[in-house]
Order: sequence, then structure tokens, then C-alpha cells
Amino acid sequence: MTRADEATAAAVASVVGDGDPGATVDRDDRTGSVVAHAGDFEPPSLDAAVAVVAAGTADAPVAGEAAVVASEVGATVDRVDDVGVANLDRILDQVDRIREADVVVVAAGREGALPTVVAGLVDAPVIALPVSTGYGVGGEGVAALEGALQSCSVLTTVNVDAGFVAGAQAGLIARAVDAARAE
Amino acid sequence: MTRADEATAAAVASVVGDGDPGATVDRDDRTGSVVAHAGDFEPPSLDAAVAVVAAGTADAPVAGEAAVVASEVGATVDRVDDVGVANLDRILDQVDRIREADVVVVAAGREGALPTVVAGLVDAPVIALPVSTGYGVGGEGVAALEGALQSCSVLTTVNVDAGFVAGAQAGLIARAVDAARAE
Amino acid sequence: MTRADEATAAAVASVVGDGDPGATVDRDDRTGSVVAHAGDFEPPSLDAAVAVVAAGTADAPVAGEAAVVASEVGATVDRVDDVGVANLDRILDQVDRIREADVVVVAAGREGALPTVVAGLVDAPVIALPVSTGYGVGGEGVAALEGALQSCSVLTTVNVDAGFVAGAQAGLIARAVDAARAE
Amino acid sequence: MTRADEATAAAVASVVGDGDPGATVDRDDRTGSVVAHAGDFEPPSLDAAVAVVAAGTADAPVAGEAAVVASEVGATVDRVDDVGVANLDRILDQVDRIREADVVVVAAGREGALPTVVAGLVDAPVIALPVSTGYGVGGEGVAALEGALQSCSVLTTVNVDAGFVAGAQAGLIARAVDAARAE
Amino acid sequence: MTRADEATAAAVASVVGDGDPGATVDRDDRTGSVVAHAGDFEPPSLDAAVAVVAAGTADAPVAGEAAVVASEVGATVDRVDDVGVANLDRILDQVDRIREADVVVVAAGREGALPTVVAGLVDAPVIALPVSTGYGVGGEGVAALEGALQSCSVLTTVNVDAGFVAGAQAGLIARAVDAARAE
Amino acid sequence: MTRADEATAAAVASVVGDGDPGATVDRDDRTGSVVAHAGDFEPPSLDAAVAVVAAGTADAPVAGEAAVVASEVGATVDRVDDVGVANLDRILDQVDRIREADVVVVAAGREGALPTVVAGLVDAPVIALPVSTGYGVGGEGVAALEGALQSCSVLTTVNVDAGFVAGAQAGLIARAVDAARAE
Amino acid sequence: MTRADEATAAAVASVVGDGDPGATVDRDDRTGSVVAHAGDFEPPSLDAAVAVVAAGTADAPVAGEAAVVASEVGATVDRVDDVGVANLDRILDQVDRIREADVVVVAAGREGALPTVVAGLVDAPVIALPVSTGYGVGGEGVAALEGALQSCSVLTTVNVDAGFVAGAQAGLIARAVDAARAE
Amino acid sequence: MTRADEATAAAVASVVGDGDPGATVDRDDRTGSVVAHAGDFEPPSLDAAVAVVAAGTADAPVAGEAAVVASEVGATVDRVDDVGVANLDRILDQVDRIREADVVVVAAGREGALPTVVAGLVDAPVIALPVSTGYGVGGEGVAALEGALQSCSVLTTVNVDAGFVAGAQAGLIARAVDAARAE
Ligand SMILES: Nc1ncnc2c1ncn2[C@@H]1O[C@H](COP(=O)(O)O)[C@@H](O)[C@H]1O
Ligand SMILES: Nc1ncnc2c1ncn2[C@@H]1O[C@H](COP(=O)(O)O)[C@@H](O)[C@H]1O
Ligand SMILES: Nc1ncnc2c1ncn2[C@@H]1O[C@H](COP(=O)(O)O)[C@@H](O)[C@H]1O
Ligand SMILES: Nc1ncnc2c1ncn2[C@@H]1O[C@H](COP(=O)(O)O)[C@@H](O)[C@H]1O
Ligand SMILES: [Mg+2]
Ligand SMILES: [Mg+2]
Ligand SMILES: [Mg+2]
Ligand SMILES: [Mg+2]
Ligand SMILES: [Mg+2]
Ligand SMILES: [Mg+2]
Ligand SMILES: [Mg+2]
Ligand SMILES: [Mg+2]
Repeated sequence: MTRADEATAAAVASVVGDGDPGATVDRDDRTGSVVAHAGDFEPPSLDAAVAVVAAGTADAPVAGEAAVVASEVGATVDRVDDVGVANLDRILDQVDRIREADVVVVAAGREGALPTVVAGLVDAPVIALPVSTGYGVGGEGVAALEGALQSCSVLTTVNVDAGFVAGAQAGLIARAVDAARAE
Repeated sequence: MTRADEATAAAVASVVGDGDPGATVDRDDRTGSVVAHAGDFEPPSLDAAVAVVAAGTADAPVAGEAAVVASEVGATVDRVDDVGVANLDRILDQVDRIREADVVVVAAGREGALPTVVAGLVDAPVIALPVSTGYGVGGEGVAALEGALQSCSVLTTVNVDAGFVAGAQAGLIARAVDAARAE
Repeated sequence: MTRADEATAAAVASVVGDGDPGATVDRDDRTGSVVAHAGDFEPPSLDAAVAVVAAGTADAPVAGEAAVVASEVGATVDRVDDVGVANLDRILDQVDRIREADVVVVAAGREGALPTVVAGLVDAPVIALPVSTGYGVGGEGVAALEGALQSCSVLTTVNVDAGFVAGAQAGLIARAVDAARAE
Repeated sequence: MTRADEATAAAVASVVGDGDPGATVDRDDRTGSVVAHAGDFEPPSLDAAVAVVAAGTADAPVAGEAAVVASEVGATVDRVDDVGVANLDRILDQVDRIREADVVVVAAGREGALPTVVAGLVDAPVIALPVSTGYGVGGEGVAALEGALQSCSVLTTVNVDAGFVAGAQAGLIARAVDAARAE
Repeated sequence: MTRADEATAAAVASVVGDGDPGATVDRDDRTGSVVAHAGDFEPPSLDAAVAVVAAGTADAPVAGEAAVVASEVGATVDRVDDVGVANLDRILDQVDRIREADVVVVAAGREGALPTVVAGLVDAPVIALPVSTGYGVGGEGVAALEGALQSCSVLTTVNVDAGFVAGAQAGLIARAVDAARAE
Repeated sequence: MTRADEATAAAVASVVGDGDPGATVDRDDRTGSVVAHAGDFEPPSLDAAVAVVAAGTADAPVAGEAAVVASEVGATVDRVDDVGVANLDRILDQVDRIREADVVVVAAGREGALPTVVAGLVDAPVIALPVSTGYGVGGEGVAALEGALQSCSVLTTVNVDAGFVAGAQAGLIARAVDAARAE
Repeated sequence: MTRADEATAAAVASVVGDGDPGATVDRDDRTGSVVAHAGDFEPPSLDAAVAVVAAGTADAPVAGEAAVVASEVGATVDRVDDVGVANLDRILDQVDRIREADVVVVAAGREGALPTVVAGLVDAPVIALPVSTGYGVGGEGVAALEGALQSCSVLTTVNVDAGFVAGAQAGLIARAVDAARAE
Repeated sequence: MTRADEATAAAVASVVGDGDPGATVDRDDRTGSVVAHAGDFEPPSLDAAVAVVAAGTADAPVAGEAAVVASEVGATVDRVDDVGVANLDRILDQVDRIREADVVVVAAGREGALPTVVAGLVDAPVIALPVSTGYGVGGEGVAALEGALQSCSVLTTVNVDAGFVAGAQAGLIARAVDAARAE
């Protein structure tokens, strides 16, 4: 469950706890994601890493959805925030770290230039995650999505604010890499 | 080079041959793709498979672009054609074959339902490749692209007719899987 | 009347009851549809069947409008729910049941693939009923409507969320079939 | 095959004739539709009537596609032309004739008011067939399609210029009525 | 002032009355229009008639704005309501009355066919007034506006819900006719 | 007939002349309009004036259509060209002349500011005639049409390039004024 | 900070005051802009002037954002209000004043004709600032933005309601002029 | 004159030469721009520099229009080509050179990220010049224009392919700087 407030998380915890006293229900403050596990849940663990990169603070909740989903699938997730292209030093400082991931999710709103720049810097597959910041013509994430579709770099995209889908696709790729490592 | 006619391919062959008598220039009749290699070219070879699935015959040229690009990167490419959802038996007959791939590209125009159906049937990551068939409202691939963005299944997408990008992203995933297998 | 809350239904019941103490006013909890009949109302009855198929739970209220309207006209209505194409087994399990109908309404949001798949499986006329689920580009039912307009199968469509129109058109076809049976 | 010129029809005739000397290939001058039948073809015949109504001369080719398709399925087809709403007398003069049909296809471009008016005049199911006449904002059939989607009368629609789909859906309804008559 | 509730009208009356005890402030219940006149106001009076025609009850407030504005300019205003094209008898019954006007405003939402039909029936200039009824694709008055722009009849249009502009333009034409009558 | 080349005009002249040796066929070089009259044609004559104002030379052909149509109806037509708002002196120089008309058509493309400016300067009814000049976003007359729909001045509009409709509506107003003068 | 209400401004003042007792926090009533300065802040001062011109009262808050930003950068700002083109005298009366500026920001909504007219009257660079007034088709500032993009005069534009960006760009130009004057 | 082929340039040269034997007519091969000067023409010369930056070779013709126009006004123009953001090293290598300009025009198509990146690197005012490269959704320069409107950096924009306007506005700023330097 994503984008839940604290009350909803508590309600979920109560319902879940009634059925399974050993169950855990955790809510991430930053993203509002709620993760519930049965008491006998064995968390999966993949030998594969996902980087979740975000351009600005407004992109954090959507990037967080992707991170939580990839994490639940068992991938190691590394979050890199606040590296928008209006100041290139920030992204250049983090590029070595991002290059360690097997797959990269890049969340950006407004003009959405960051996925193109990151995909130009790394060799791993990049998934663009357009965010519904912005206003006026091209607002609500439209310019960011179109920017991903028109990118000069190689990347694929999900719909605006589709953090769940970006995280799940990153998880599928991480799983494929993990399985190959295990062969 | 993609979507070239025979004359263009011949012209390319002539120019290339002048500079490097050992070079090869091949044109794929179905897709119009032209691939040129230096005489001392060592084709890369990846231990990873890409399935390129197409809904109808009109999708073949765009699917072909994806196949050629993934193939050039060194992936084993399996083409599955003519499995549009208006007759489900066709796709159900091919599903075991598609499940053998490490990553799947699905090309479809019109209402573009095939990527959603395929992503529901396989566990590998799926890349939707919307094709500019169709007419009237939602034509020129717009409905197919929006269908990929709205999909109930987990998948990512490229722009309309972006066979090159779909093939290149599939190639990046294949490369990551190959590298993991080699570890 | 469709999409009414309980209070509105009660108010209607009170007003109607004042004028005609034998009148009945019923509200369907799932759809919010309210049906009022005079005390001496003779419900029409048609020898014709309408199937109302819905992809997911989010589509129930709109599908319900179509079902109530077709039912009021006198058709036998069969509701088939939760058969979205992300899991083909569900729709394949229900196809014999759907094939018994004289006309089929298929409600689906997001990428709206279900009407195309159903129309490929049955010989009766299919009416697509796009639902305003979905978000981002192609959201608010636009992708689902465009998917119906671009369908590879033979079908006609109504506007987004137009459950009343879909049900009424299904009723007109049911009436034509009933009249032909009565000849 | 629809919208073929005479040369194409001749080429088809030649190819078809080579394989089956008894085959027939006919081209309708008005619509450019070409219909080919094997020498031992038994035309289907339905006890059901389809009216194909067109607003103006510019709508004839698209209306013709619908008529040919419905006719091939075996329905009796009645064409009513030149009854645009800018002069109501024309449509009012033909209404009795249209009321004899079991299902009605109404082709109109520009503002596309005719399907709404006809659906208000008849009890049979009406299928709107928007035509890509018109220019400027709302041109290329968009206003006509949106007019059908917004209609105050009960009707369903196909995409702009989708004469084939309108005729095929009318054929499916005619077939259902024919089957009911035969019971 | 248009679309004001009763409280606003009272507030206006109070403010206006403070400054000019003889002033009048009237609010039209149906349209919410408020008209304030100084105590020594001499209402203009034109020898010219404006018909304001509306398709349905939902169009009344916007049609009312046009009527109030034309009336304030001094034109004789005749309101003709509830004459939508889904039932042609209603408009045919009123056509003689509408033909008496020097200029006609026609308000309609949804598919907006009424302005085209009225302009085909009368010789006076017709101003289309699209109304923001409708829903889904083409909703919010877009189909109605595009229908006016694509009309097969001769007419001009204002923007969606622009009752003030339609009434003011009708007033300018009425004034021109009045001046000509006075010559 | 509008926008015809010289050859078409000649062909029309020949056909018309065969049937009616006294008939006249004239083509206006600037607009490509062709006007054919029977030999015994009595041109109508209205005691009313239409001004047709155009912003730039690119607007001349469309403005010409309006002028020809208004003229054929019998109105006195005054053409005022090349008065775009980027240089206000030009329109201010012509304003007295434009004020003599009973109704004004104003053709403008690009940002289409001229109809708003003219309607602010004259008391006669103004009809905006958006022209499909312009390029990029808002091109093909869209910005000009939207500018007319959003105008701060009182005016009505026709669709992009609809010179015929603008001229015909101006003619209807001229006829109403002429009739009033004749009373 | 722009578009803040009084309570927000007070909260900011309190927080800022805690850290720096000499700091000042000022809120402009008209625009809702809040400007905070450290106690030892030395306001920059540029030898360059920016004119901020607004068509109507509805444009004031957005124009105000531009003015505050340009002012903070140190430019001399001259505000010219209520000079919409529906009454040309108003803008003609102010043109000498506007000509004194080194760079001009012009805010306008609806049809947005004012930037084009001003850019035709002055030689300084003009920045259009489209405002989200307006309704119906072309509303929310779209017609105004497209009008700027299609302008017959030389000007550049920012997005709808982007007062901050217009003011900041005007500030950059003012700074360049100031630096050149200082050489 | 811009985008002229060689034949057109020759025709212009011939016409111009007839009237003024000393006149010069030059055509720039790369951009197709034609510049004609009277025999006694004194080229203006401004003490101000314009950088015209282009992402890729496809952007050269449009960037060239801007460069020719700025140059004709008298500015010193520096062209920086092939610095698209898919490879950041290219733009980082040129940034010192670009920083020497008083105003910068940045031409880019596809996702149009370059203007945002450049505006983040330099202090001079930046004018985005979106180019109509790209395909599918967001193609024809739409994504690039929307990217400029949504930019996280401070910049203004012109319409798609409006090289003339970008160059002219850069020229106006250069002129203002030159005048300030001359004071
Ligand atoms: N089992 C389900 N439960 C809830 N929603 C569903 C389900 N299956 C499909 N949907 C929704 O149905 C729509 C499209 O389904 P389909 O046309 O089958 O691809 C979307 O609104 C989906 O989110
Ligand atoms: N008599 C006619 N001749 C040619 N086209 C017509 C005629 N009547 C209507 N149309 C066209 O029919 C379409 C819409 O008609 P309607 O739906 O009746 O308003 C438009 O394409 C009109 O231009
Ligand atoms: N005097 C005024 N008072 C209020 N709004 C105005 C005024 N003049 C123009 N406007 C508005 O200014 C915008 C366009 O002005 P313009 O470009 O000058 O035609 C629109 O938002 C108008 O509604
Ligand atoms: N080296 C290049 N050669 C040709 N086109 C390029 C190159 N780099 C970028 N482009 C194009 O430039 C536009 C946008 O580049 P950018 O601003 O870097 O995102 C697109 O049209 C790209 O396809
Ligand atoms: Mg890369
Ligand atoms: Mg899957
Ligand atoms: Mg079927
Ligand atoms: Mg009916
Ligand atoms: Mg008429
Ligand atoms: Mg006026
Ligand atoms: Mg200027
Ligand atoms: Mg900067």
C-alpha cells in the first residue's frame, strides 16, 4: 500500500494484528508507504542492486514508492536525492555510486531532463519515472513524460507518478540478474 | 541504419567497400535494416535471450528494428509474430516459447492490448513498443502508447515506433544478465 | 436515477410515497442506482439476455448502471466481474457463460483491453463501456475509450462512464431480439 | 477490400481468376469497395434489415463501406442519402422508411448532428459513423465523434471513418435478430 | 452581475441603496443574474427582438445570462426553453415564434446540435452558445463548441458558457436593426 | 465557389456557357473566388455595408472569401487590409472608415489580436475570422481562434479559415439591417 | 516566497526572527509576496530599469511576482496597470513611460494581445507573462501563452503564471545592462 | 530571408541586382539564409556578443536562422554545435566559451534538455529555441517547448523552430548592452 496517512496505517495494523498477532505493519514517513508482513514472513533477498535517483525534494514521495516496491522484492536499494540538472555538479558527484547499481530508476518532474542525463552517464538499464510537478502548459508531469519518450539516451518509461510500476519493473530486472548470478 | 530501401543499402555497401574491402553490408528484406561491419569485426555474443513479439503483420518493420538492434548487441533473438489478442489461442500457443526469454519486447498498434496480456503471462521484464497503426481518434499509435502507460500489468514503454530504443534497452538488460551469468 | 446515496434514495421514496402509497423505491447498494415504480407498475419482461462484464472492482459502479438500465427494460442480466486481462484464466473460465447472452456490455478502465478480448471470444454484439480509472497521460478513461475506438475486434462504444447509455443500447438490442423471437 | 481504384480491382480480379476461374470480383463505383467470391460461393441471407443513412454526398464512401459489409453478411441493406439536418424536411420525409430497419447506421461529418436526430426518431438501435469531413478545430471527424459520444439520444459509436466496423456490428445485430426470427 | 446567490444580491442591494436610496436591485431566481439601476435610470428600449432558445433545463442559467444582457440593452427578449433535438416535435412547434426575432441566441450543451438545426430553420442571424454540460471525452462543452464551429448551417459562436458575450453581441445586432428602423 | 485556380474557372465557364450562353463566370485573382450568374440574373442590392478587415497579406485569400460572399448577398463591401496590431498606427488610421460599416468581419492569423482591438474601437457587431497562418504550438489558426473565444471585447467567431461562413453571417446581418431600413 | 497569506508570512517572520533578531520580513498585500532579509543584508542596486505592465486587475498578482523578483535583484521597477487592449487609449497614454525601461515584462490573460501590442511600441526586449484568466476552450492561460508564441512582434515568453521566471529573466537582462553601464 | 534553396537565392540576386548593381546577395549553405544588402549598406556593429548553442546536427538550420539574424543586427555571434546532454563532456568542454557571451540562444529538439543545463551553467540571459525534431508523442518540438516552459533554470522561450524570433530577441538584448557600454 502506498501514500497512506498514519491513521490508515494504524487501521491496517489493527486489522492485520487481529488475524495474525505476529504480523508487522510499518509505515515510511517520507513516502507514506505501508508494508505489512505475516508473522512467519521470510523476506526475499536478491543479489542485485537498484539505484533510485530523484531530481528534487518534490520527487521524493514518488521515488519512495519505487524504492519500497523494489526493496520488498528483495533488491538492495540505494537512494540518491536532490541531483537535478540545473546544477550539474550534484549529479556528477554521485555518478560513481549510481554506476554500482544493476538497474536505475530516475524520478524527475518539471522538464524531466535528469533521466536522459543519467542514462548518458551509466551503462545499466534506466527507467524514467516522470513526476507530476510543474504547472501551466506541460504541467502535471506531461513535459517530463514526453521528455522521457523523446530522450536522446536509451531508456524506457512508466506513466506519471507510477512509482509502483517503476519499482516493480526494476524488481523484475533485479530478479533476472540475481537468478543469473545464482546459476 | 533502419528502414532503408535496397538502393540505399547498395549505396552504403559501395561507400563502405571503398574504404574497407573486407567489410560486409547486409540488408534485412522484412525490416529494411542495414547492418554494416568492418572486415575485422568480431560480433559480440551474450549468454542472454530477447523475445520480440508482434501483434500483427503491420508491426513487423518496427519489431524488426528492435530485433536487429538487440541482435547486434549480441543477444539471442526469438521473433514471435502474428499473436494479436483478437484471437487468444495464438498467444496462448506461444507462451512457453516466450517464457524462455530473459527480456521481452512486445510490439502492438491499434488498441495495443498485447503488451499487457504478455506481461500478465511471463515473469521476465516486458518492454512495450507501441506502433503507429490505427486511424481516427487515438490513431498514429497514441492509443497503444496510452494503453502501455495505463497497463494493469507491470511493464515499461518506449515512444511510438521507437524500435531502436526498445531493442537497445532489451540489449542493456541482456548484457546485465549475461554479465551476471559470467560472474 | 443512478449514483445516489442512501439519503437521496430515502428522500425520493418519501416524495414518491406521498403521491402513490403503493409505489416502490429500491436502491442498489453496490451501484447507488435507485429504481422507482408506481404501485400498479407491470415490469416488462423480454425473452433476451444481456451479459454485463467488468474487468475489476473499480468498474462495478459503472457496470452496475448498465445492468440496472438493461434490467429495467426487461432483459435478463448476467453480471460477470473481476475478469481483467492481466490474468487470462479468469476470463477464459467465464467465456461459456458470456456466450449465452444476446448482447454483451464490457466495462474496463486503465488500458481497457477487456472489450477487445471479449469481442474476440463471442459472436454476439459487444458494447464497450470505458471507465474513468487510470491516472497520468491517458487517464480518466481516455486510454480505455481510445482502445475501444481502435479495437482490432468488432465492437461499438459509448463515452467514458456512460453506463446508462451502454445499458439502454443493450436494452434496445435485447428488445429487437425479443420481438423477433415473438414473431 | 474497401476504397480500391479500378486498376486495383482489375489486378485483384486477375489474381483471383487465375486461382479460381469461376470466381467473381465486383467493384462498387460509388464506394470503391471490391467484393470477391469463390465460384462455389453461397451468399448468406439474413431475415433482417439494416438502414445506412448518410448526411451528405461527402459521407457516401464511408457509408458505402458499412453498407457493403452488412450486405456481405447477408442483411438486407437500405441506403438513405442526403438527409443532413440543415434542412429537416429531408430526414422527416424518410423517417418511415428508416423505421423499417432492425438496426440503423448513421454516417455524418462536420458537426455530426444526424445520428442524434435519427436516434430520437427511431426505436431500433443506432450506430453512429463519424466521417472525417470538416476543417479547422474539431475537423477530421473529431467534432462528429465527440458529438456521438455526447449524444442526448441513445446510440453507440465507432471511430472516425470506421465504415467497416459499423457495418460489421450492424451485421452482428442483424444476425442475432435473424437467428431469433428463425427460432 | 451574473450567477449570484441570494445573499450576494442582498449585499449588493444594501451597498447600492446606501449610495442611492431610489436605486433598484433585482435578482432573477432562474439565472442568478442581478441587475442594479440608479434611481433615475431610464431603461433603453430598442425596436428589435432577440430570441434566446435553450435545448434543456441544464442550459437555462447560461441562456439566462444572455437574455438578461440583451434585455438590459433594451431588446425585447423571448425565451424558448426545452427544445432539444432528441425530440424534433418540440423545436418544430416553436419555429414560428422563433422566426419573429431579429437575432437568435441558441444555447446547447452535450453534442450541441440545436444551433445547427435552428439556423437551418430561420433566416435571422444565429449565435451559438455552447454550454458546459456533458462528460467524458468532448465534455465540458468542447463537443458543443466544436459542433458550432463545424456547423453545416450559417452561424457564429462564442466560447463555452459565454452567456454574457452572446447576449451582448445579440444586443449589438438588435441596436443596429433598431437604428435602421428609426432612420 | 472559392479558392479555384484559373483552369478550374475556365472549365466552369465552359460548362455553364453551354447551358446558358448569357451566363457570366468571373474569377477574382486575389482570392480565387469564382462567381457564376445566369444570363437573366438580377443581382440583389442591400442598403447595408460590411467592412472586411485583414491583419496581413497572408489573410487576404480568406478575407476575400468573406468579401465575395457578403457582396453576392448584395451588401456594399469595404476591404481594409494590412492593419495588424504590431503597428497600431495602421489600424488607428483606418478606424473612421471601419466605423461606417453596419457589420465588420476581421480576419487575422498568428496570435489573432486584431478582432479584439477592432471590436474595442467600433460599436457595430464584429465577426472574428481566424486564419491558419502561424506554426509550432498554437499554429494552424488555433491560437487565433482561441484568442477570439477569449476576447476581452464583445465579438463572435467562426472556425479557422471559414471565410464563407463569416461572409454569409455578415450578409444575414446586413439583410436584417436593410430590411429594417426599408420598413 | 510568493502567493503567501498573512498567517504564513507571520510564521516565516517568527522563525526568521528567532535566528536573526535584526532580520526583516515584509509581505506585499497585493501580491502575497514575502521577502525576508538578514539583519546585515545590503540590498543590491542596479543601474537598470524594468517595466512590469499588466492588462487588468486580475493580472496583478502574477505581475506582482515578477516585479518583486526583479526588484530584489536590484532593478528599478515601474508598474503600469490596467492597460488592456480593449481600450487602446490606456496603453497609448502610457507608452512614453514604458519606453524608459531597459526591459519590459507584459502580463495578460484571456486572449493575451497586450504583449504583442507593447512589443510593437517599444524597442526594448519584451517578456510575455501569460496569466491563467479565461475560461472554456483556450482558458487557463493557454490562449494567452499560444498568443505569445505566435506573436507578430519580437518577444520571448515564460509559462502561464510564471511571474517568478519572468521577473528573474528581466533581472538577468537588467544585470547585464548594469554591468555594461559600469564598464 | 531564411531557408531558401540556391535557385531562390539566385532569383533574388537577379531581381536585386537589376535595381541596385552594387547590391550584394549572400546565401549561407548550412542554413539556407539569404542576406541582401544595398550597395551603400553600412553594416551595424554592436559591442555585444551572442552565443548560439545547438544540441545536434539536426538543430543546425534553425540555430543558423538565429545566428544570421543576430549577426545582421550587428552582434558578434559565436556558434557552439553538437553539445547534446546525452554526453555531458561536450557541453562541459565548451562552457567557458559560452560564458563570454552577453546573451545565449540554445537550440535543441527531442527532449530539449540542453537549454535547462546551459542556463544552469551561465549567468547571462538564456533564450530556448525548441526544434521540431522528435517523433511520436511529444514530437514536432512539443516536448522541447514544454521542457523550456517547465525548466528548473531561469530562461524564456520562443515557439518551435522560431529561429528568427530567438535571433531578433537576442539582438535586442545585445543592442541594449551595446548602448549601455557606449554611455
Ligand atoms: N482483478 C481486478 N481487480 C480490480 N481491478 C482490476 C482487476 N482486473 C483489472 N482491473 C482494472 O480493470 C481495468 C482494465 O482491465 P482490462 O481491460 O482487463 O485490462 C483497470 O481499471 C484495471 O485496474
Ligand atoms: N445535402 C448535403 N450535401 C452534402 N453534404 C451534406 C449535406 N447535408 C449535410 N452534409 C454534410 O453532412 C455532415 C453533417 O450533417 P448533419 O449530421 O446532418 O448535420 C457534414 O459533413 C455536412 O457538410
Ligand atoms: N481594464 C481591465 N480590467 C480588468 N481586466 C482587464 C482589463 N483590460 C484587459 N483585461 C484583461 O487583460 C487580459 C488581456 O488583455 P489584452 O491583451 O490587453 O487584450 C485579460 O485577462 C482581460 O480580461
Ligand atoms: N551529437 C548529436 N548529433 C545529432 N543530434 C544530436 C546530438 N546530440 C543531441 N542531438 C539531438 O539534439 C536534440 C536534443 O538534445 P539535448 O538537448 O542534448 O537533449 C535531439 O534532437 C537529439 O536527437
Ligand atoms: Mg546509458
Ligand atoms: Mg509479468
Ligand atoms: Mg466477436
Ligand atoms: Mg431511438
Ligand atoms: Mg439560417
Ligand atoms: Mg465594439
Ligand atoms: Mg519591439
Ligand atoms: Mg543561468
